[in-house]
Amino acid sequence: MHMNVKIEPVNRTDRDNLQSRFSAVREYTLDLAKPLSEEDCCAQSMPDASPIKWHMAHTTWFFETFILERFEPDFSPFHPQFRMLFNSYYNGVGDKHARPQRGLLTRPSFAEVMVYRSDIDMRMLKLISKHAADTELASLIELGLQHEQQHQELMFTDVKHLLSMNPLKPTYKEPPLHQCAQAEPMDWIAIDAGIVEIGHTGSSFCFDNETPRHRQFVEKFSLSSRLVTNGEYLAFVEADGYRNPAFWLSEGWDWVQANQLKQPLYLQQSSDGRWQEFTLNGMQNLDMHQAAIHLSYFEADAYARWAGARLPTEAEWECAAGLSGMAQLFGTAWQWTSSSYGPYPGYAPAKGALGEYNGKFMVNQYVLRGSSSATPTGHSRATYRNFFPATARWQFSGIRLAK
Amino acid sequence: MHMNVKIEPVNRTDRDNLQSRFSAVREYTLDLAKPLSEEDCCAQSMPDASPIKWHMAHTTWFFETFILERFEPDFSPFHPQFRMLFNSYYNGVGDKHARPQRGLLTRPSFAEVMVYRSDIDMRMLKLISKHAADTELASLIELGLQHEQQHQELMFTDVKHLLSMNPLKPTYKEPPLHQCAQAEPMDWIAIDAGIVEIGHTGSSFCFDNETPRHRQFVEKFSLSSRLVTNGEYLAFVEADGYRNPAFWLSEGWDWVQANQLKQPLYLQQSSDGRWQEFTLNGMQNLDMHQAAIHLSYFEADAYARWAGARLPTEAEWECAAGLSGMAQLFGTAWQWTSSSYGPYPGYAPAKGALGEYNGKFMVNQYVLRGSSSATPTGHSRATYRNFFPATARWQFSGIRLAK
Amino acid sequence: MHMNVKIEPVNRTDRDNLQSRFSAVREYTLDLAKPLSEEDCCAQSMPDASPIKWHMAHTTWFFETFILERFEPDFSPFHPQFRMLFNSYYNGVGDKHARPQRGLLTRPSFAEVMVYRSDIDMRMLKLISKHAADTELASLIELGLQHEQQHQELMFTDVKHLLSMNPLKPTYKEPPLHQCAQAEPMDWIAIDAGIVEIGHTGSSFCFDNETPRHRQFVEKFSLSSRLVTNGEYLAFVEADGYRNPAFWLSEGWDWVQANQLKQPLYLQQSSDGRWQEFTLNGMQNLDMHQAAIHLSYFEADAYARWAGARLPTEAEWECAAGLSGMAQLFGTAWQWTSSSYGPYPGYAPAKGALGEYNGKFMVNQYVLRGSSSATPTGHSRATYRNFFPATARWQFSGIRLAK
Amino acid sequence: MHMNVKIEPVNRTDRDNLQSRFSAVREYTLDLAKPLSEEDCCAQSMPDASPIKWHMAHTTWFFETFILERFEPDFSPFHPQFRMLFNSYYNGVGDKHARPQRGLLTRPSFAEVMVYRSDIDMRMLKLISKHAADTELASLIELGLQHEQQHQELMFTDVKHLLSMNPLKPTYKEPPLHQCAQAEPMDWIAIDAGIVEIGHTGSSFCFDNETPRHRQFVEKFSLSSRLVTNGEYLAFVEADGYRNPAFWLSEGWDWVQANQLKQPLYLQQSSDGRWQEFTLNGMQNLDMHQAAIHLSYFEADAYARWAGARLPTEAEWECAAGLSGMAQLFGTAWQWTSSSYGPYPGYAPAKGALGEYNGKFMVNQYVLRGSSSATPTGHSRATYRNFFPATARWQFSGIRLAK
Repeated sequence: MHMNVKIEPVNRTDRDNLQSRFSAVREYTLDLAKPLSEEDCCAQSMPDASPIKWHMAHTTWFFETFILERFEPDFSPFHPQFRMLFNSYYNGVGDKHARPQRGLLTRPSFAEVMVYRSDIDMRMLKLISKHAADTELASLIELGLQHEQQHQELMFTDVKHLLSMNPLKPTYKEPPLHQCAQAEPMDWIAIDAGIVEIGHTGSSFCFDNETPRHRQFVEKFSLSSRLVTNGEYLAFVEADGYRNPAFWLSEGWDWVQANQLKQPLYLQQSSDGRWQEFTLNGMQNLDMHQAAIHLSYFEADAYARWAGARLPTEAEWECAAGLSGMAQLFGTAWQWTSSSYGPYPGYAPAKGALGEYNGKFMVNQYVLRGSSSATPTGHSRATYRNFFPATARWQFSGIRLAK
Repeated sequence: MHMNVKIEPVNRTDRDNLQSRFSAVREYTLDLAKPLSEEDCCAQSMPDASPIKWHMAHTTWFFETFILERFEPDFSPFHPQFRMLFNSYYNGVGDKHARPQRGLLTRPSFAEVMVYRSDIDMRMLKLISKHAADTELASLIELGLQHEQQHQELMFTDVKHLLSMNPLKPTYKEPPLHQCAQAEPMDWIAIDAGIVEIGHTGSSFCFDNETPRHRQFVEKFSLSSRLVTNGEYLAFVEADGYRNPAFWLSEGWDWVQANQLKQPLYLQQSSDGRWQEFTLNGMQNLDMHQAAIHLSYFEADAYARWAGARLPTEAEWECAAGLSGMAQLFGTAWQWTSSSYGPYPGYAPAKGALGEYNGKFMVNQYVLRGSSSATPTGHSRATYRNFFPATARWQFSGIRLAK
Repeated sequence: MHMNVKIEPVNRTDRDNLQSRFSAVREYTLDLAKPLSEEDCCAQSMPDASPIKWHMAHTTWFFETFILERFEPDFSPFHPQFRMLFNSYYNGVGDKHARPQRGLLTRPSFAEVMVYRSDIDMRMLKLISKHAADTELASLIELGLQHEQQHQELMFTDVKHLLSMNPLKPTYKEPPLHQCAQAEPMDWIAIDAGIVEIGHTGSSFCFDNETPRHRQFVEKFSLSSRLVTNGEYLAFVEADGYRNPAFWLSEGWDWVQANQLKQPLYLQQSSDGRWQEFTLNGMQNLDMHQAAIHLSYFEADAYARWAGARLPTEAEWECAAGLSGMAQLFGTAWQWTSSSYGPYPGYAPAKGALGEYNGKFMVNQYVLRGSSSATPTGHSRATYRNFFPATARWQFSGIRLAK
Repeated sequence: MHMNVKIEPVNRTDRDNLQSRFSAVREYTLDLAKPLSEEDCCAQSMPDASPIKWHMAHTTWFFETFILERFEPDFSPFHPQFRMLFNSYYNGVGDKHARPQRGLLTRPSFAEVMVYRSDIDMRMLKLISKHAADTELASLIELGLQHEQQHQELMFTDVKHLLSMNPLKPTYKEPPLHQCAQAEPMDWIAIDAGIVEIGHTGSSFCFDNETPRHRQFVEKFSLSSRLVTNGEYLAFVEADGYRNPAFWLSEGWDWVQANQLKQPLYLQQSSDGRWQEFTLNGMQNLDMHQAAIHLSYFEADAYARWAGARLPTEAEWECAAGLSGMAQLFGTAWQWTSSSYGPYPGYAPAKGALGEYNGKFMVNQYVLRGSSSATPTGHSRATYRNFFPATARWQFSGIRLAK
């Protein structure tokens, strides 16, 4: 198969399964937008983030452009300019709208984007009902759904950033009942040196950047059993961590000084010394036992150095990911690794525009492993390679230590 | 009187007149927003422009902050943070929200801003009904209404810029039936040298920057009877006007090159050489007989030099404004003058925060005279001093020549 | 005559006078460079400033390009690329070397530039000996000498800025014996309203921007008899002048904040509160009775507002310049006026590249009058119009107040 | 030993050897400056580059600060401010002069820097004569000499960049007789999969970033026997390589567009299609058989993708470096690897300020292996890790391909 997806949809051969999975993922996107107004969905708080409406249109564009355009017999575009308007970064598809201007797209309206979604959904479901046995189609659909799930997490991070820029500090939704729990003690899980295999294998879905599975030699190391807590991170802050260059990479220190950073994003200290954080439920008292999040690679690396440890490589993380005693691997916070994002040995991107999905970003970014509280259910696995530049702070990203 | 308004409301002493004028101006603002969605009203296309919703809230804030706060016996703010959120530039009022981030204010919602407007309107009407005889109050109300009218024109310019940034080129409203008319021949009206008086006089409203009326000596000069047309301006474009530094001020030439400008804002030439313009009614064929608009000072000055003429001073413009034969003085396009925006001899801004209305902007800006098609009815007069930086193009600004 | 110089060299008709004046001005430029090393002469401390070596070559280029090229029978350029390399801003002459890269011209060497100067000097003296009676040639030579005198002042300001950037705080030359003198009390000289004539007249040299002489109406005003002293200006600094937006133009306040300014350029306060200034003789204790210098327009304007006064217009300055009681008109510090730099009524620049000398800079700059301690002897007059942007601080510029 | 150098100076224990090596390295620096004027040595062409004079002072500062200050019994600094003035990036040493302003240091003069060099040289030689048996001192001296050799290569790259910015295209020195030679055919050397050891071992000098030697698993691969030639690279240029995003990393493509790049640095094509390059001997016809140099990581990576190959990892490069048939490993051009610059497993920087030598730069840079024609004799080895950001073009950096 020449696609960058490895699925052989053995367990989903029947039409109904695929239709129902398609519908479930697509509906969850709508659920995420429900607490928001049309104005909330239109604004863009920084070039790195996108408006919610744009996410909703772009994930739809993905199905239209990469599936309907190819498989629909008498394909006709929903709107002739949407191909350009909602192209994120695929040069192979043609022109694209400038990323920093996504927030100016007050037209098409939110309502029109809903019509767009419905139209593409109906056509996709019809396509599935006719061609469910086509494994290449099924692979592409699965890719489109995984793609949408990636954007679902981005919708959380982007709306959180947008609301945080508003002096009114609005809430996305009401907070759940809060259960205060002590953090577990931090243990160190040791692993011996040896050749390990990393990368995805088997017939379930993965992105092309997780392949091919290959061998690496890993020296003896230990990983912390859980993530660094807010309380632990604040000890670094309060020990003048943001004022001492000795803890920082040189480029990280320049970044701290240029932005006059004194603490993690979304945290603020009131005049009486109490720490609060901006959350999707508005400003809240900071729970010192929860994992520290919204940290950049530079902050994670500086903390590790201060704590006499280091960040793990992605091979270390992956080979330790199945060991008993390892807590908070998934569902709490993405975990920075010291591995620069690059191709696995033998990696080859797909032909055509879809080959731009991952490969062209393999420079000057760092790999994060695990998943976060914002990651959709079923979207996590031990071989997953998330990646962001060393300065990115608006993701749900935290720290697991290595020695 | 210590205010920067000169009204003595002789002809409006009665309550009803003031209430009805107040309501009419306030309602016209709502009319302007009617063709727009909530998303349209929230977005900000550049730091110089503001969202429509922000204009609607800020003009309301003006009445609340400068009138209700002072005259309402048991004043209580509509919302404690609006004082900061909708303060444009008055340091004397306290903190203000950063201008480039106005487009991120998805909250308060459009609906909440409508409630804000209604609440302040009701309280203002009540205040008028009780204190209509208070001339200082009446003066302040008139200032607030004139201020709102200035923002009404900005709503046109800002929404035009926003819509122009959208590749879908949306229309603000349907175009009127178009009447094609030949431009009149351009005549030159000559005025002899002598001492003239310029500046506002009498009891009708004016802004403080139009005072005091004072004498200037003006040498002999001539003004063109009408504004430069699209056809005339395009002759300059097509004579390589944007490629020859000889026509431009040095700083203007740097600006042309840094922005790679080749023609006025909103104009584009199709491959067959036909010129079109983006308008509030979408893309339209360019009418060569209409006045050229959306020109910066640098463009106006370069055109004048190319045409063997110059821009008028504001004293020349004002003393010629009443002469017979002068067409298009008001209601077509603002007219750049060569006069840097500065204080008239003896000018003194008001005490307190309202003194920031005009005075602190008197540097590195150029005066425009007349009014445009976007200026509200009744808001024009011969002594009016509009002002913008030499690079501003998104206003309805054109060229009257002098010799 | 079509040139932008008004000289009729009645008193200099003979060859000897012109040759000796030419030699004197050219030699003074060499005198200025004497205390400097070749390295000092090569460096450029900011894009606004130029290297000393560049000044020495450019002033020579002026004679070669505008005089020898035209009057020498078999003209051949000294070096084919110097025409481009030392062209400051004359688009009519052709390409020019990018201004911010002047400091990278380590070649031609200082020694080669000296050879260039000698060669052009010899050819100029020969030309004078043959054609001294040619009044147009004499006018152009006078323009070249006045041009060189302007650069002589810039050599002081630019070398002062360069040396000030060096943590070693080097001295340009040894300080003279210092005579401490009390500042005179500040008087106010009053002038009645009326029509005045300003601008240059007569047969002596002037720049084209000083013409034509014309009438202006000036309202009644008063000017301060002397310039503001360091002591007076520091009272403003110590009254939190740089922390209170009420004193500043809006754009000036943005500039203060963006650059985190707290005091004038070249001043610093030691921990014990004592003020020092960087001078061409190194760091010196600040003399509170001397005129405050190195002030921008924004600083001058803010001080005047704080002091309950204002800056004079250039018409006010010029018509008061001859009155008895007016001290420090020339030779102390240039004096900011509130007049934007623009053309006098009827002003027409010369034809050809020399027309770029003044006219194309007539926007977004402010006029300074008088002259400074760095101005060459004989280069001052009451009609002289110096001009700089409102942020310029590295000139010897101070404050005369008006009311 | 707690230092980040691994030397055990068994073969140099005697004083004479160390003194003569010290003198030889220090003198070679002077040789490099000989063809340059004092002006050439003072200028800085971009923030990434440094003036020659600064290199000469900084390498001297290194001996003074890290050796004399510690070992000289009654140490007294040569000049109290040089510690700050010539500190490159060691936060542990204290303040440092801003890097982009190194070109403004016209003082100390070139002559004074020569005195500084002589003084420190004398004191160093005296120290060596007394303490040659001290292995820690010998290690530090060796580090200082290796450090100076790194700067010797930078002197070539920086002076080349400076001279290239001059429209006169000056020569650093006369060109040697040119021997035209055909490039050898490109072979592919294959290596089997397996565990390899990389990193430095033994008692000879290395930098701390080459340690500890450790195991890596390397999959089967092939390396090209020689570097890519100018002729081969121009085939990519002429196949629209700089106009097609398909060959580029996403960030590389943004860089190409933002800088409007069309070809490698220092190359230019004349109107008749002939290619020339700027060299230290001035403009020269491009030799198509020579290795292509002055390529950024982005260009090297794009070329490899276009050629159907890829860049090697540093482990691949190092384990193939000893194989027969591998040409141009050293002395031609540094060779980009796809390896992000990071710490080897178990790497620990030295304590104190010298620990900043390498470790803090381990982010967002890529490793280059081999050495170039500008690398001093004796400064190359197979384990050497050079590193630069992906945009750096002014180094002598080329391409070895992998498959």
